[in-house]
Amino acid sequence: MSGLQFVRAVQAGELPPPPIAVLMGFWISEVEEGRVVFAVEPAEYHYNPIGVVHGGLAMTLLDSAMGCAVQSLLPAGTAYTTLETNVNLVRALTRETGEVQCVGSIVYQGGRIATAEGRITDAAGKLYAHGTTTCLIIRP
Amino acid sequence: MSGLQFVRAVQAGELPPPPIAVLMGFWISEVEEGRVVFAVEPAEYHYNPIGVVHGGLAMTLLDSAMGCAVQSLLPAGTAYTTLETNVNLVRALTRETGEVQCVGSIVYQGGRIATAEGRITDAAGKLYAHGTTTCLIIRP
Amino acid sequence: MSGLQFVRAVQAGELPPPPIAVLMGFWISEVEEGRVVFAVEPAEYHYNPIGVVHGGLAMTLLDSAMGCAVQSLLPAGTAYTTLETNVNLVRALTRETGEVQCVGSIVYQGGRIATAEGRITDAAGKLYAHGTTTCLIIRP
Amino acid sequence: MSGLQFVRAVQAGELPPPPIAVLMGFWISEVEEGRVVFAVEPAEYHYNPIGVVHGGLAMTLLDSAMGCAVQSLLPAGTAYTTLETNVNLVRALTRETGEVQCVGSIVYQGGRIATAEGRITDAAGKLYAHGTTTCLIIRP
Repeated sequence: MSGLQFVRAVQAGELPPPPIAVLMGFWISEVEEGRVVFAVEPAEYHYNPIGVVHGGLAMTLLDSAMGCAVQSLLPAGTAYTTLETNVNLVRALTRETGEVQCVGSIVYQGGRIATAEGRITDAAGKLYAHGTTTCLIIRP
Repeated sequence: MSGLQFVRAVQAGELPPPPIAVLMGFWISEVEEGRVVFAVEPAEYHYNPIGVVHGGLAMTLLDSAMGCAVQSLLPAGTAYTTLETNVNLVRALTRETGEVQCVGSIVYQGGRIATAEGRITDAAGKLYAHGTTTCLIIRP
Repeated sequence: MSGLQFVRAVQAGELPPPPIAVLMGFWISEVEEGRVVFAVEPAEYHYNPIGVVHGGLAMTLLDSAMGCAVQSLLPAGTAYTTLETNVNLVRALTRETGEVQCVGSIVYQGGRIATAEGRITDAAGKLYAHGTTTCLIIRP
Repeated sequence: MSGLQFVRAVQAGELPPPPIAVLMGFWISEVEEGRVVFAVEPAEYHYNPIGVVHGGLAMTLLDSAMGCAVQSLLPAGTAYTTLETNVNLVRALTRETGEVQCVGSIVYQGGRIATAEGRITDAAGKLYAHGTTTCLIIRP
C-alpha cells in the first residue's frame, strides 16, 4: 500500500484505528495527497490540573495530522519517522469548545526529509494551536 | 498554595490526579524547586499505527514535566500558561522499553517569561526524547 | 508612529536602515498589515566553512520578517519582543541562488502574545527555509 | 580530516575563518569532542531597529556552536547538515554586555540524526539565549 492508501484505509475503518486514537478520542476526517485532517471533541478526560484541556492533546493531534500529511505522499515500501515537532498553543481548548479540526499540510518534500505544518481550529474557524514538524524519510 | 505546594499535593495524592494523567497512565515521581520528574510505563494503548508508542506520549509527558518545573517556582496566586513546546524524538518507545522518567528543569525564570527543558530516559539512562518550552507567567 | 508606519518608514528610507540589515545586505521590499517581505542576495560573504550560505542568514531574515509582520499590527506606543524562533532549513542558499524573498505573515494576534510564520523562496518560488516565531506584546 | 580536526584547524587559524564569522565578528574559543564554544563581542553593527542586538546574532552563534558540536564527533568523510534550529531569546544583548560565550553541546548522536543544545552567557554567567538543533548526518 502507498502512504495515501494506508491513511485512507485507516480513515475508512478498513484498518483498525490506532490505540492512541481510541485512547484520546480522535479520528481522521479528510485525506488527500499532502493534506490530512483529524478531528476530536475536547472533553473533561483530556483536562490538566488547571481545568482546561492539556496541551498534550493539541500536540498529539498536530503530530498525527502533520505526520499523515507526510505519509500521504510516500510510495509503497517507504517509511517515515518524526524527528522534531514544535507547537504553539494560542487558546485553551475546553469541553465547551466543541469539535475541532486539525489540518496537517505538507510544506517541503525532499528525498530524505519532509516538513509539514498544522493548525487546530473550531467550527467558527478560530485558531487554538499551530505547529510544524520535521520528518525523516526512510526509503527501501 | 504556592506552585511547589500544588505540584507536591498532586504528587502526594492530596489533590486528585488530573484527568490526562489518568488517561495516559503517567504520574509525578519527584518534585523539587525548578525540577519535576514524571514517569510512565509505555504500553500498547499508547501505540500509533506503525507499532510503536505515538510521539504524543513523549510530547504530553515533556510538556507536563517542563510546565511543572516552571510552576514549582511560582508564588501563590501566580499562574502560567504554555506558549510553545518543541520536542525531539530520538528513539522509539515500545512496551518493551519499561518505565521511563521525564525530567523537567527550569532554564530561565523572568518576570513575565520562563523557559524549561526536559528529557525522557529509561532505567539505563538511554535518551528517548528531549524538548524545551516557553511559558508566560501571569502575575496577579 | 504605529508599527505599520514604522516599518514603512524603514522601507522608504525615511528612517535609517538598522545596522544588522546593512551588515547582512537585506532590505524590506513589501509592507502591508500583518505581512512584511524582506529580500537579500546571498553572496560569498554569507558563507559558512562548508561552502554554502550559513543558516544564520535564513534565521536572521526569517526573524526579521516575522517580527515585522507582528509589529505591523501594533498601535503606537506598543512594543514587542521575540521570545522564540524556530527555523527549518530545507535547501542550501548559494551565490548562484540569486535574490530571495522572505515573507513573514501573522498567524495569531492576541492581547499579550502574537505568532507569525515565514518562508524564504527564490525567484522561481522554490522553498529554501521556513519558520515560526512567538512574540510578547508589551502594551503601555 | 575528522570533524574534530576540522573544527580545531579553524580555531587555530590553520584554515581560513569562514566568511560569516568575519562578517559577524565571532570566533571559536574552545573545542573538545561533543562540545564547542564560540565567542563574540556584541556591538552596534549587530543592532536591530529598536536599539539592541538583533536576535539573528544569537541564532547564528547558536547554530554555529551546536553544528560544530555535532561535527566534532564525525569521522573523516562524513558530513552533516542542519535540518532545524530553535532559539529562545531571554535577555537582550547590547554593546554594554561585553564578550559572550556560546556553548554548543551534543545531546544525541545516532546513525542518521544528531541533536545538540546551546547556551549564550556573559562573563558573569547570565543567560541571554538558548536553543536546540536537529542535524542530518550524511555518511559516505
